[in-house]
Amino acid sequence: MARAIVDVMLKPEILDPQGQAIARALPRLGFSGVSAVRQGKRFEIELDGPADEAALADIRKMAETLLANPVIEDFTVRVEGETAE
Amino acid sequence: MARAIVDVMLKPEILDPQGQAIARALPRLGFSGVSAVRQGKRFEIELDGPADEAALADIRKMAETLLANPVIEDFTVRVEGETAE
Repeated sequence: MARAIVDVMLKPEILDPQGQAIARALPRLGFSGVSAVRQGKRFEIELDGPADEAALADIRKMAETLLANPVIEDFTVRVEGETAE
Repeated sequence: MARAIVDVMLKPEILDPQGQAIARALPRLGFSGVSAVRQGKRFEIELDGPADEAALADIRKMAETLLANPVIEDFTVRVEGETAE
């Protein structure tokens, strides 16, 4: 069993109103020293088997077609907590 | 300048209907081998200065009070792409 993490963020050239709202609220709430915030999504995907190349290829396809909108979002796939079996 | 990443996930004991909907849709879409999906949020926070202990303490407070709901969510803070200045 392994866990894959898919991080999905808006592409840098796409405006992120949620992140901007957070960044604007911070000084009002007493936090300084932050120049920008961007908000994205994180998916934890539990695999039945090991996170081998075939499984990761599947997850990349999944991210492209289901988890992210590749027109406006970038994603990264990585493996976490892999245990050899 | 440094970037801090805050990952916010629902606590394990809290049901995640979004993740469950994705996990249920996967076999229908031709993906097998996934036993569970959980969806959370990821925040990229650009700092004006270095990600020292004071800045990270601030970000932890920010995550607790603004980015996550600690009643139902867990968060982790980590530093990415730090450059010495």
